[in-house]
Amino acid sequence: MNNDLLSVLKLVSEGTLNAEQALETIQGFTNGSDAKIDTDRKNRVGFEEVVYGRGKTPAQIAAISKVYAEKQVNFICTGLSEEKINGLRDLCTDCTFVPEAGIVKRIVNPIDTKEGTVAVITAGTSDLYVAKEAKEILEFCGVGAKLYADIGVAGIHRFLSHKDDISRADVIIVIAGMEGALPSITGGMFPQPVIAVPTSAGYGTALNGFTALFAMLTSCAAGLTVVNIDNGFGAAMAAVRIINILNLRKSGH
Amino acid sequence: MNNDLLSVLKLVSEGTLNAEQALETIQGFTNGSDAKIDTDRKNRVGFEEVVYGRGKTPAQIAAISKVYAEKQVNFICTGLSEEKINGLRDLCTDCTFVPEAGIVKRIVNPIDTKEGTVAVITAGTSDLYVAKEAKEILEFCGVGAKLYADIGVAGIHRFLSHKDDISRADVIIVIAGMEGALPSITGGMFPQPVIAVPTSAGYGTALNGFTALFAMLTSCAAGLTVVNIDNGFGAAMAAVRIINILNLRKSGH
Amino acid sequence: MNNDLLSVLKLVSEGTLNAEQALETIQGFTNGSDAKIDTDRKNRVGFEEVVYGRGKTPAQIAAISKVYAEKQVNFICTGLSEEKINGLRDLCTDCTFVPEAGIVKRIVNPIDTKEGTVAVITAGTSDLYVAKEAKEILEFCGVGAKLYADIGVAGIHRFLSHKDDISRADVIIVIAGMEGALPSITGGMFPQPVIAVPTSAGYGTALNGFTALFAMLTSCAAGLTVVNIDNGFGAAMAAVRIINILNLRKSGH
Amino acid sequence: MNNDLLSVLKLVSEGTLNAEQALETIQGFTNGSDAKIDTDRKNRVGFEEVVYGRGKTPAQIAAISKVYAEKQVNFICTGLSEEKINGLRDLCTDCTFVPEAGIVKRIVNPIDTKEGTVAVITAGTSDLYVAKEAKEILEFCGVGAKLYADIGVAGIHRFLSHKDDISRADVIIVIAGMEGALPSITGGMFPQPVIAVPTSAGYGTALNGFTALFAMLTSCAAGLTVVNIDNGFGAAMAAVRIINILNLRKSGH
Amino acid sequence: MNNDLLSVLKLVSEGTLNAEQALETIQGFTNGSDAKIDTDRKNRVGFEEVVYGRGKTPAQIAAISKVYAEKQVNFICTGLSEEKINGLRDLCTDCTFVPEAGIVKRIVNPIDTKEGTVAVITAGTSDLYVAKEAKEILEFCGVGAKLYADIGVAGIHRFLSHKDDISRADVIIVIAGMEGALPSITGGMFPQPVIAVPTSAGYGTALNGFTALFAMLTSCAAGLTVVNIDNGFGAAMAAVRIINILNLRKSGH
Amino acid sequence: MNNDLLSVLKLVSEGTLNAEQALETIQGFTNGSDAKIDTDRKNRVGFEEVVYGRGKTPAQIAAISKVYAEKQVNFICTGLSEEKINGLRDLCTDCTFVPEAGIVKRIVNPIDTKEGTVAVITAGTSDLYVAKEAKEILEFCGVGAKLYADIGVAGIHRFLSHKDDISRADVIIVIAGMEGALPSITGGMFPQPVIAVPTSAGYGTALNGFTALFAMLTSCAAGLTVVNIDNGFGAAMAAVRIINILNLRKSGH
Amino acid sequence: MNNDLLSVLKLVSEGTLNAEQALETIQGFTNGSDAKIDTDRKNRVGFEEVVYGRGKTPAQIAAISKVYAEKQVNFICTGLSEEKINGLRDLCTDCTFVPEAGIVKRIVNPIDTKEGTVAVITAGTSDLYVAKEAKEILEFCGVGAKLYADIGVAGIHRFLSHKDDISRADVIIVIAGMEGALPSITGGMFPQPVIAVPTSAGYGTALNGFTALFAMLTSCAAGLTVVNIDNGFGAAMAAVRIINILNLRKSGH
Amino acid sequence: MNNDLLSVLKLVSEGTLNAEQALETIQGFTNGSDAKIDTDRKNRVGFEEVVYGRGKTPAQIAAISKVYAEKQVNFICTGLSEEKINGLRDLCTDCTFVPEAGIVKRIVNPIDTKEGTVAVITAGTSDLYVAKEAKEILEFCGVGAKLYADIGVAGIHRFLSHKDDISRADVIIVIAGMEGALPSITGGMFPQPVIAVPTSAGYGTALNGFTALFAMLTSCAAGLTVVNIDNGFGAAMAAVRIINILNLRKSGH
Repeated sequence: MNNDLLSVLKLVSEGTLNAEQALETIQGFTNGSDAKIDTDRKNRVGFEEVVYGRGKTPAQIAAISKVYAEKQVNFICTGLSEEKINGLRDLCTDCTFVPEAGIVKRIVNPIDTKEGTVAVITAGTSDLYVAKEAKEILEFCGVGAKLYADIGVAGIHRFLSHKDDISRADVIIVIAGMEGALPSITGGMFPQPVIAVPTSAGYGTALNGFTALFAMLTSCAAGLTVVNIDNGFGAAMAAVRIINILNLRKSGH
Repeated sequence: MNNDLLSVLKLVSEGTLNAEQALETIQGFTNGSDAKIDTDRKNRVGFEEVVYGRGKTPAQIAAISKVYAEKQVNFICTGLSEEKINGLRDLCTDCTFVPEAGIVKRIVNPIDTKEGTVAVITAGTSDLYVAKEAKEILEFCGVGAKLYADIGVAGIHRFLSHKDDISRADVIIVIAGMEGALPSITGGMFPQPVIAVPTSAGYGTALNGFTALFAMLTSCAAGLTVVNIDNGFGAAMAAVRIINILNLRKSGH
Repeated sequence: MNNDLLSVLKLVSEGTLNAEQALETIQGFTNGSDAKIDTDRKNRVGFEEVVYGRGKTPAQIAAISKVYAEKQVNFICTGLSEEKINGLRDLCTDCTFVPEAGIVKRIVNPIDTKEGTVAVITAGTSDLYVAKEAKEILEFCGVGAKLYADIGVAGIHRFLSHKDDISRADVIIVIAGMEGALPSITGGMFPQPVIAVPTSAGYGTALNGFTALFAMLTSCAAGLTVVNIDNGFGAAMAAVRIINILNLRKSGH
Repeated sequence: MNNDLLSVLKLVSEGTLNAEQALETIQGFTNGSDAKIDTDRKNRVGFEEVVYGRGKTPAQIAAISKVYAEKQVNFICTGLSEEKINGLRDLCTDCTFVPEAGIVKRIVNPIDTKEGTVAVITAGTSDLYVAKEAKEILEFCGVGAKLYADIGVAGIHRFLSHKDDISRADVIIVIAGMEGALPSITGGMFPQPVIAVPTSAGYGTALNGFTALFAMLTSCAAGLTVVNIDNGFGAAMAAVRIINILNLRKSGH
Repeated sequence: MNNDLLSVLKLVSEGTLNAEQALETIQGFTNGSDAKIDTDRKNRVGFEEVVYGRGKTPAQIAAISKVYAEKQVNFICTGLSEEKINGLRDLCTDCTFVPEAGIVKRIVNPIDTKEGTVAVITAGTSDLYVAKEAKEILEFCGVGAKLYADIGVAGIHRFLSHKDDISRADVIIVIAGMEGALPSITGGMFPQPVIAVPTSAGYGTALNGFTALFAMLTSCAAGLTVVNIDNGFGAAMAAVRIINILNLRKSGH
Repeated sequence: MNNDLLSVLKLVSEGTLNAEQALETIQGFTNGSDAKIDTDRKNRVGFEEVVYGRGKTPAQIAAISKVYAEKQVNFICTGLSEEKINGLRDLCTDCTFVPEAGIVKRIVNPIDTKEGTVAVITAGTSDLYVAKEAKEILEFCGVGAKLYADIGVAGIHRFLSHKDDISRADVIIVIAGMEGALPSITGGMFPQPVIAVPTSAGYGTALNGFTALFAMLTSCAAGLTVVNIDNGFGAAMAAVRIINILNLRKSGH
Repeated sequence: MNNDLLSVLKLVSEGTLNAEQALETIQGFTNGSDAKIDTDRKNRVGFEEVVYGRGKTPAQIAAISKVYAEKQVNFICTGLSEEKINGLRDLCTDCTFVPEAGIVKRIVNPIDTKEGTVAVITAGTSDLYVAKEAKEILEFCGVGAKLYADIGVAGIHRFLSHKDDISRADVIIVIAGMEGALPSITGGMFPQPVIAVPTSAGYGTALNGFTALFAMLTSCAAGLTVVNIDNGFGAAMAAVRIINILNLRKSGH
Repeated sequence: MNNDLLSVLKLVSEGTLNAEQALETIQGFTNGSDAKIDTDRKNRVGFEEVVYGRGKTPAQIAAISKVYAEKQVNFICTGLSEEKINGLRDLCTDCTFVPEAGIVKRIVNPIDTKEGTVAVITAGTSDLYVAKEAKEILEFCGVGAKLYADIGVAGIHRFLSHKDDISRADVIIVIAGMEGALPSITGGMFPQPVIAVPTSAGYGTALNGFTALFAMLTSCAAGLTVVNIDNGFGAAMAAVRIINILNLRKSGH
């Protein structure tokens, strides 16, 4: 910030910018209504804002979607129940719906494809919803993803059979509920960055995903990182951050 | 009990026992001092009482040990810190000390060896204390045990290399801390009864063994059973119950 | 595995198998769609996969059931609400429904009956659902089970009156909610393997079954083992593992 | 209070008391230093203040004890470690020390014995400290107590053998750690008021006494009441409240 | 039990009872269907079984109620939602419904009124449901109860104004949610037995009643006892135990 | 910030400041070693940084103290055990030690006394340490404080007797452990800002202060605010914020 | 109280009041039905009772509202779901409904406006409900409030842009869910009293608001105070207490 | 694995390897004593095993260190208390000790330096131990690291002043205790991969680091990943995985 600030200050000092113009540049956002649009986010962190649909009504989501449409910005919203998606079908007739991932989206600009791929692994079939959310977000951000489903530790030979394929990915996302053991196996077998996602699959001592979360955080495999329970979106974003730096460094920045 | 009671009542009815004698037989224990000796336990559940040393002073343990010595009963006491064991060395000069398992014992009668063996597996070296407690208790009860240490999921190929050996045991005890993933792998690979023991190894989200405990209880491998954290004694006793019924049924009872 | 692997490798070395055939044998499963069928499980652990219905739609369960029907494999699915069972009645017209246990099944091959019986005990009437799930699973696996209901510690004389009967079983499953005291009584009175199942019966400090779970894990009776809350299925499977080893050893293996 | 207040106000109104005297009577305590002495407590609730020693230094306890001595009031202090008791031996040379109950006391006035007795039952020997604290407090308050130790559910026949004796008490205090099952058995067998005291005996899932606490609170036996973990003092006081009302009502109040 | 047992055994010994009759007397219950009726309970603990309605269907409750009707025993069932009560109105046309206490009952025998009264105090209006459950149970057991509602600590002068009335009761039940402070005030002001009932009133840090529960258990007022959250039934039963012993002792037993 | 920034930018624009000077003014802190000194804090939030001693060695604290001495700034450090204070006595010979509050300080500039006083109330004597920490901090910030100790709810008349005095304070800090009931009484009786401090006094269900914390947060008295457990410092600072705004507004700002 | 009491006592002593009149004055409330109206509250703590709607039926709320209308007292009720508000529309036709704040109110007397304003800041749009509840309560109590929404830490520059405005308020209420970081930033930047409100926004590790609650309580910014989760009402009341004392002191009291 | 396995199988099929040689190759580790050395780890996951010192005695660590020395492998051991490090100084005279990071190491082979750097940021000075552990591990793995200490949110301007520097790193590790807010700020401001490490700094509601852990997992900034509490080692390893893939991809693999 200091250097940026210094540059702006120098421009003021030289008379290139007046004080008011300098202020606007330093502020970097436009005052709007209740939901302030963070126009600077892509610039700062490398990806656009993703709308989080839980806790918003279909009407509110449709309204936000409209703002994006007007600005000709790609729109994606996650965390939508089947009921909400149905409520949105009439309100956003030009949107694409991905109910098995709880997502609605509208792509108005071609997505800028990046180099690098992500392997998305799930332990059981009940983890698929989270995996598909991750895959959708990755693709929205221009990152290729391949899904390996239902290869958990109850029959570990199923996992081993995909070893070669998985070893070609740049980042591995491992999604598991119940005892959350698959990330440990993965981290002990592969050298890539491994992002573990606990899910709320299971009952009783599964503790709505906290047992898997704690198991992943205390894994005996070194260098695993973890995101919130059922947070396929967050895991995808963490992978995007890695892929972004990878693309940047490969291009010489 | 009804049939037993009925038999006793019939003996009374026939005049073979008087009422007072019948009462003593039905009661099945002798009134002693504060610590009542459950003389009937072996008869009821197939194994003698094991003294639990935590929360008892060396002097108290030595006193109890003396009672066993006088009765010519085999004595074993678990849960002893190194400090307590050292305090006991002078008080129980004819005892055997197993500090790496927190145990002191005195074998005065030959142990009645049973058919059947138990595989005791640990994920890491920090689980060895619990494994050795289990092994000592098994042997005290006449059950052979073999220890497989440090073969956890961070390098799963080490575990796989012992597959044949383990498959020959009658019962498998799996001991693991941190994320407690090894029992899931074991249960998914072997048909025998699997008794999982969570340990307090790890820190932070290991939750002093609760993460491993919950992970084992919510395992995706079917038919695992679990005992208390660090409870090598309990796992051994559960294995003894299985080996006992196995011996009984094989002998035609 | 090493020995098995060695045998396969020798077959390759001798030219009996080519490399591709060897790979398939070592892999031990067929690549299918999202839900991979673990065709090797019975071989490995002694029992077929049981389908877990919670988190699956009636349509999904019906589809899976159809695959089993086509393969002429016995099918059983647990964890079904009354609503789901009703939804399945039209989709699986040749299935048997056991709503009081939350189960649907289709038996196409005669069940291979095993020697040995299991006593299933419940503390209260609200634990019956879990007990019936256990009984159904046991019978599906060819193990005879007898149910003793509502004999909890508030009137302990009811429990004592069944003592003789229970003492003839090979394994005891004890199911209790609230304070979960019955397994302690059972473990202190019987020599057999005792598998304790906590249930979510009760309110407030019953903590949805966690109080019973913790009470059972910290029981003063030695050698109890415990499964997840409301997990009648898991307790049955643990009993099957014991009965299996008992049958195997009696037959001289 | 209204009637009392009204009486005082009438005395003022009649000129029998002046305003200042009335204020003192209504206030009912004397302003002292940091630790205000609640001179009115016995009058209000039927028993003197018991000093709680945890968190006080030997010097502080000795100072408080001296105030009681000067006032010729019976003194008792609970919650004292062996170390603190040793520190107090020189400071309170005329006190009686009960280290096995963590108590120091000085009886300067004959204790007013009440009608009625309390049975104090413990499940294990590690619960004895709490039981002896309860017994000391009961006797300090003039209530007779009888201790039944080590008769827990692992060998329930030991408990049954004392049934007649226990049934003659007016109040039953049941003290148990680990799974805390004994109060349920007691409450299901006896008609008297049952006060359950969980103890911190046990490890892991015993949760420092919380498992026993929750088990007692969710007991299937009706009408049990519970006090804090290891709170022998509180259980005794609750029993004293019952014995007091019993004496009062028998004497016609 | 020993003396009783001895008596029965002597009767057998003398030929007054045969062995089978003795067994039935000792057993003290009749083998029925799933829900075993504890015919011995009133004899043992001084009150009949109260049916707990949560987790039972209206049909099941109606069936149980019918058994009581046939046996001419007073019937009361607690824990009923408004919906269940409405479902029962057609099935139990001769029952009395108390929806504000979640209770249905049928009194066929005159209730045996006991000496002694209970003061039932609530902190807020949202605690009234629990208070009315307690009051109904007390009256079902023949114990008079008086309700003091909405006199919590936010305006402590409301509580103080009832001091005289409350001081005439034999037992005090104090019911409070949120921070659960009222029992501390009560216990510090009155000498009688005080039974505290935490309720689930409040939100967030009220923790569904656990904050009030823990507050009551750790109260600075000596000799309070506590029951489960929202357990008006349990508090009433604990009061009945006290009133019973009071009646018994006054009558010279 | 915008206005401030705009002013600075205008100064640059006018040539009064060069770019580098402007940057330093905007930054508002000096780059130092590991522990950066927040020279701007008093300016921003109205009070100097207070050093937190827990987790620092006596040597580290002495070093920091020396920096303050050199800058001629008043120094205060909290959270010191008796052992640490003793370790500091030789290192900071010109400091004042307040062991009963865990504090060391050195006042080199006269404290700027503010209008307004704070009443600091404790429920028990074990809460005094926290109260004295609060009082020391208040006085360090120029705010007068008066301490009312040991006036908790077990004898509520002691509290009532100070009502007039307390009602003259501008802010009330109420400190209580165990069930934490005193803030509810206080908040229901006084109109001033009430800051509640839970303490870790108590055992078992006192949960190291969490029961008091939750009780205070869910109090039925409206408008209480709460700080961390044992955080006398935080409560004092919150009071200082109120007194500061009060002084500011009274002086016409 | 003593001085007040003394005055009343003197009036009695002088014959100005008789004993009954004195009692009524000291009592300070009128005996009503179940819900006692605390007529003295405004007098004691500076604000009227606010009705809490959660756990009350529309009919009950309408009845209470009617009592206020008859007494010509301003009425406000919080915590109302959309469903309840709709149920109330027909029952309270002269009320004003604020569904976005969960509030219904009826203002019959002009509100007494106070000097001083409160800044109400929210981190996200999902915190708006709580913010609007706070704003409504503040205005009901005559305190001006300004809302700054959606300026959380994910784009901290949005927050910084309002710095000047916020610095003019007398009290700052900061409302945030998820990780609850905004109060730390606020407390580190502004000198005023800061009242932090955690909200239940978020999922998984947000723990229904407990993560934000604990984060706010353990904030590194000094002098923050905290209220219960989602408790906009409580935060407003705490601000009113501050504004009240501020008005009182400015007016010379 | 399949491809690898297939290759090996083909070699056997061609006669290049015999069956025993093939087995050894497939196994990939040597059978040793209790602590099996995972000779294959670097090959599999890109980094050597790091010895974890907590729970090992100085003697054990020295013994392990000796094995590494004999094998001429670089050795590093973490988690060592000051006491243990002192105990090791005589046993490992040729080791380097880093007590401020709890580390002992011996570098016998030149470290293979990688391209890419990691910024390690701490919120407070009490987080330095964890930061230095991370820095040591990074450097042991050949990754350059730069430390920015004590720039937490209580004075956010200190953080902002390092913005340019931090933006040049490839990976950011953010270490914070208490409310753990700094990662949210960092993630909202920088595009790189951000690995958040909660620390146990703080008391009371800091919950030994769980509040920071949960806050980081539920952060409003997208794409953060988190490791266990105080786990500087794990964060470093996660960064190494990213740097490794970055080097690999840049070199064209």
